[in-house]
Amino acid sequence: MGNIFGTLFRIATWGESHGGGVGVVIDGCPPGLPLTEEDVQFELDRRRPGQSDITTPRKETDTVHFLSGVYEGKTLGTPIAMNVVNKDHRPSAYSEMREKYRPSHADFTYQQKFGRRMAEGGGRSSARETIGRVAAGAVAKKVLKLGLGVDIIAYIERVHDITMPELATAPTLEQVEASPVRCPDAATAEKMIERIKEVRSQGDSVGGLVKCHITGCPVGLGAPVFDRLEADLGKAMLSLPATKGFEVGSGFDGTFLKGSEHNDLFENREGQVRTKTNRSGGVQGGISNGEEIYFRVGFKPTATILQKQATVDLQGQETELMGRGRHDACVVPRAVPIVEAMSALVVLDHYLRHQAQNRTFQFPQ
Amino acid sequence: MGNIFGTLFRIATWGESHGGGVGVVIDGCPPGLPLTEEDVQFELDRRRPGQSDITTPRKETDTVHFLSGVYEGKTLGTPIAMNVVNKDHRPSAYSEMREKYRPSHADFTYQQKFGRRMAEGGGRSSARETIGRVAAGAVAKKVLKLGLGVDIIAYIERVHDITMPELATAPTLEQVEASPVRCPDAATAEKMIERIKEVRSQGDSVGGLVKCHITGCPVGLGAPVFDRLEADLGKAMLSLPATKGFEVGSGFDGTFLKGSEHNDLFENREGQVRTKTNRSGGVQGGISNGEEIYFRVGFKPTATILQKQATVDLQGQETELMGRGRHDACVVPRAVPIVEAMSALVVLDHYLRHQAQNRTFQFPQ
Amino acid sequence: MGNIFGTLFRIATWGESHGGGVGVVIDGCPPGLPLTEEDVQFELDRRRPGQSDITTPRKETDTVHFLSGVYEGKTLGTPIAMNVVNKDHRPSAYSEMREKYRPSHADFTYQQKFGRRMAEGGGRSSARETIGRVAAGAVAKKVLKLGLGVDIIAYIERVHDITMPELATAPTLEQVEASPVRCPDAATAEKMIERIKEVRSQGDSVGGLVKCHITGCPVGLGAPVFDRLEADLGKAMLSLPATKGFEVGSGFDGTFLKGSEHNDLFENREGQVRTKTNRSGGVQGGISNGEEIYFRVGFKPTATILQKQATVDLQGQETELMGRGRHDACVVPRAVPIVEAMSALVVLDHYLRHQAQNRTFQFPQ
Amino acid sequence: MGNIFGTLFRIATWGESHGGGVGVVIDGCPPGLPLTEEDVQFELDRRRPGQSDITTPRKETDTVHFLSGVYEGKTLGTPIAMNVVNKDHRPSAYSEMREKYRPSHADFTYQQKFGRRMAEGGGRSSARETIGRVAAGAVAKKVLKLGLGVDIIAYIERVHDITMPELATAPTLEQVEASPVRCPDAATAEKMIERIKEVRSQGDSVGGLVKCHITGCPVGLGAPVFDRLEADLGKAMLSLPATKGFEVGSGFDGTFLKGSEHNDLFENREGQVRTKTNRSGGVQGGISNGEEIYFRVGFKPTATILQKQATVDLQGQETELMGRGRHDACVVPRAVPIVEAMSALVVLDHYLRHQAQNRTFQFPQ
Repeated sequence: MGNIFGTLFRIATWGESHGGGVGVVIDGCPPGLPLTEEDVQFELDRRRPGQSDITTPRKETDTVHFLSGVYEGKTLGTPIAMNVVNKDHRPSAYSEMREKYRPSHADFTYQQKFGRRMAEGGGRSSARETIGRVAAGAVAKKVLKLGLGVDIIAYIERVHDITMPELATAPTLEQVEASPVRCPDAATAEKMIERIKEVRSQGDSVGGLVKCHITGCPVGLGAPVFDRLEADLGKAMLSLPATKGFEVGSGFDGTFLKGSEHNDLFENREGQVRTKTNRSGGVQGGISNGEEIYFRVGFKPTATILQKQATVDLQGQETELMGRGRHDACVVPRAVPIVEAMSALVVLDHYLRHQAQNRTFQFPQ
Repeated sequence: MGNIFGTLFRIATWGESHGGGVGVVIDGCPPGLPLTEEDVQFELDRRRPGQSDITTPRKETDTVHFLSGVYEGKTLGTPIAMNVVNKDHRPSAYSEMREKYRPSHADFTYQQKFGRRMAEGGGRSSARETIGRVAAGAVAKKVLKLGLGVDIIAYIERVHDITMPELATAPTLEQVEASPVRCPDAATAEKMIERIKEVRSQGDSVGGLVKCHITGCPVGLGAPVFDRLEADLGKAMLSLPATKGFEVGSGFDGTFLKGSEHNDLFENREGQVRTKTNRSGGVQGGISNGEEIYFRVGFKPTATILQKQATVDLQGQETELMGRGRHDACVVPRAVPIVEAMSALVVLDHYLRHQAQNRTFQFPQ
Repeated sequence: MGNIFGTLFRIATWGESHGGGVGVVIDGCPPGLPLTEEDVQFELDRRRPGQSDITTPRKETDTVHFLSGVYEGKTLGTPIAMNVVNKDHRPSAYSEMREKYRPSHADFTYQQKFGRRMAEGGGRSSARETIGRVAAGAVAKKVLKLGLGVDIIAYIERVHDITMPELATAPTLEQVEASPVRCPDAATAEKMIERIKEVRSQGDSVGGLVKCHITGCPVGLGAPVFDRLEADLGKAMLSLPATKGFEVGSGFDGTFLKGSEHNDLFENREGQVRTKTNRSGGVQGGISNGEEIYFRVGFKPTATILQKQATVDLQGQETELMGRGRHDACVVPRAVPIVEAMSALVVLDHYLRHQAQNRTFQFPQ
Repeated sequence: MGNIFGTLFRIATWGESHGGGVGVVIDGCPPGLPLTEEDVQFELDRRRPGQSDITTPRKETDTVHFLSGVYEGKTLGTPIAMNVVNKDHRPSAYSEMREKYRPSHADFTYQQKFGRRMAEGGGRSSARETIGRVAAGAVAKKVLKLGLGVDIIAYIERVHDITMPELATAPTLEQVEASPVRCPDAATAEKMIERIKEVRSQGDSVGGLVKCHITGCPVGLGAPVFDRLEADLGKAMLSLPATKGFEVGSGFDGTFLKGSEHNDLFENREGQVRTKTNRSGGVQGGISNGEEIYFRVGFKPTATILQKQATVDLQGQETELMGRGRHDACVVPRAVPIVEAMSALVVLDHYLRHQAQNRTFQFPQ
């Protein structure tokens, strides 16, 4: 359980880091959407390892194949199955991991929960699992863009303690992709890359912050009381590997303000009810208010480090484990398309729910 | 939609701030649990307005009634319906709200989403809605305590910018309840109360931080990849009114550390696999690891302030609204039992899911 | 678990035959529907005991109260909670049932499943549980009628072995309600009433067939592959007490035909694609085709009979039980509004799902 | 939507008759189950076309591949993805179907619902879709057999009007598989085969009845009020292509009996509470009572016949369509493993739900 996400636009992901591959089934995609494998491949390429010299040198081409649901270039409304075959098997690199739990990884908890686990590369707990999410998110993004004009753009706001100046509005995709670290501020991006290379040379790792903007979202998305828009965005983000925190709008900083400082006053701007400020982050009472939605996600430093660490083995004996393998010293740049993908899944699902409940009927009054 | 929560221990809440009342139906409560209305009333009394001189003077006794599911003092395994009748009707206090949107409230978004709303007291967007959650959470807490020995305790760590010293382990309920502000550090609690009274005298409001500890939780709870334990806890918290952020374990602060500083090394402690530190917050790979689970929730300052604010009316005309009514200058102390309730719902649900999938069968190997 | 039904128009029912009452919470009702307690009461009165001299003489007025979700005569889009207080308590009539299992009732299975049960009147397994369904169904019926022009009408086609002539199209509500047995053929209705009185005088009981017609249903409802319209209708009917079978369209009789005899050929009738015959019952491939939907539900004879029957007690000792109490010798006439209610829930839910997936977007092609 | 089934043992199926293939993802399979592709292949071979001279001559080997979730011969507890590649593409055989709706097929309703469809072979509405169900069902059957000792066996009780003598208890798999028509009564099987060949030679088709027995099912499965065991079995069966009816236990015939004739009296048999008769079909009040569960499913005659039929085309013009292609004159023998598969999915899901709610806690009383 736990591998299905969404209510009306639902996805089921599958796959381990080693074995036959990884993939996803989308149930509930609207019919008639023009869709090609290239649409999906574009996002997978942003996620894949080895895309630049600051990511892991593992070369995984991560080529997506459509298995169903798309016919003559358009979606059928039936399930869209997509898979990516695993290619870069090196199970020998993982032999020690069969016996010893890697600190701050999921080895111990998977072993205890299920009584067994695939040790190679973390199995299901590997970040490869997110391939299915990105593939499904690529479809959701296209639905939102083509059908509704919604844009979702994420970027790195901070790596370790190097922070870019705060942006008032969303940058463009080009600005984000201009640097391999996906920070749209060029000067800061340089410093981030240096820091990542520095900690990598130490066999260490760092984390950081991803900020995401959703623009063009109509008023009305979100289903209080439990399925508030920010609650579902928060769950989506906290379901990603290595995330430790989520905040929307003014976030934790906003809790230092007084009500008179924090409230977003309403005004009439060109015939629209708008807020003068946007500390709410585009969501009020759990429902989008038409302003830009923005939130931040905190990613901890990568757990895999190339240093010797104390741990225990399967028998509970204390021992040491020397990190090996080819891993990212900072996973955050590759998390950017994943954050966008999960955002798209949440926003699209809520749009469909909102239309169903509130836009289906016009009763005679 | 959006008013049902949980997978195996499911709740459906209902009710507006005015009208017949508020309540909840629990579907999936295990049978045989000794349960009285007093068990539930205890938690509702911690949530109710007017409980101390720092909360709203509205007197709502919020008396719970069991309507079904409990028989001869024990749960039947059938749905448990509970309701609380609304008593303190003062719709006249709300006449201006019918015409004008309160800033940073849900008036505008509800009106737009549904095409109509109950203006009195915020209707469904009122914090009264959380009564159903607290009632259901009281049942879940008792199941967890009696059946599993799990304790859940939350408290105020910060009000505005007044922060208590960090606690390594959970305080007792007595320590938390010793002060009406629910901060277990007596000296800090005094300062918090002063601050709340000060901003109240200004007709203003403040927010703060709630920290929650879950102790005694077995290894194995959480259902990756989407229903990670922290993801569901995060969603539960972000579904509460006025929340802006959630962080688990080291949280956003942890993103400033390097991997070598952040990783929780394993050790064998008295025959158990344990972590030497607990920056993970008791969850690794989305699954509880047997350490104490802890997280923080950020609450923004109460949106209702007794000051004149710019806004627009239903016709989109710009106007001003003077806050009235009896509201909390700081809602955070009353949020403590709600945070505990939502935590209990999430932990119990995941325990049942874990037992079902992973503890039901022992296959011959 | 098992007390929540539906995907987008979801209901949670609660309540036992004795205790505080019975009721339902609807989550997902579209806003703006004009709705009064009378709308719901009308259907409850068709279901209630004591409505005529062929039903149980228990007098239960079953008065419904709205607790939330309706404001100034219209639905808010928030949960609609409705309850009916239990009035006719006679627990003393049930003392023997605490110790002995009634044959072909749910006493034994509830006791075994939950480890305990409310013995009085069957507790949750009582047909009183269907009050919540009928109340929710009354709302769904009104949405369908007002918003979409869909009519749902059920009636008794057979009692024991007394069958009315087959109707090609749906009768009117007036025709159905003309007789207390709810058979629209007056001559047959007379014979049915006689038969019911006859078996009642013997302390015995009979069952029968309910046929239901759904007219005005648009093309496209039903979500293959699992949530076919007839599959969800079937589940809805088989979830009712005392049902043993369900068939749609030509049903079991149709399995005696050859393909060349059974197929519904298409024609163009006044510009519409229509079928010349309707053995499909208005559903093809799990999706409504615009023809009248019709199906039959088989109800077994009431399990409670006023005769001495062999059984065992809680300790497993063989014993005898003499049926007592005030029960229907034939429950089928009172099942008619319940069948309609469940039909309405299924059709409305599928309409909302269909609109959400297939009518939300128009992509540029 | 509509392609996901189950609550705790959930499956998502995908795939069209033409295109990349068909498959399934299982979410929630218990870990540690010994499982090989042969286990699944065995059931797929019982379902596949071309297995005998009374089924369609299409040769589809339908070879299954595990893509995830199985490691070193055992399930991991993570999603199990399985696929079957489509091989026998003959799209040219279907060119006429692009333009004309086949009578009593899903062509018209899919086209209307989704605005488009894959015409070749029916696309998603093809019976090939059931491959994913059978594959998932094979896993569920193995869990039930190995973990619980439950046996599920189905067979053909009737083809057209040729009925075998009623069996009091379940036949063996060997008895069922002894004949290609899967009727365990040899003499009847011969007549059925003759009838099928006869109608085939006429270019016509027939339907029939499948009966299914579930033995060894513990007391307590089923979740009233909505998710009664027979309701979920009914839905599962009615979600299969070509089904028109479902009945459990005494079924429609039982509605001709009086209560005194129909009730199953209890007795103490070797220390167990048992019923003397089993007209209930092993389910009382929606919950299994420990007796054998049995039910019947009615399948209509195959819609594809090799005769000229009246229909309309995509433009609504009346025309004729001559059935072509290689189809089963009677699909019922191949439906047998599908009925078993769906039964296994339902029973396993309910067993997990029952254990979770009712067997997880022992509260101190």
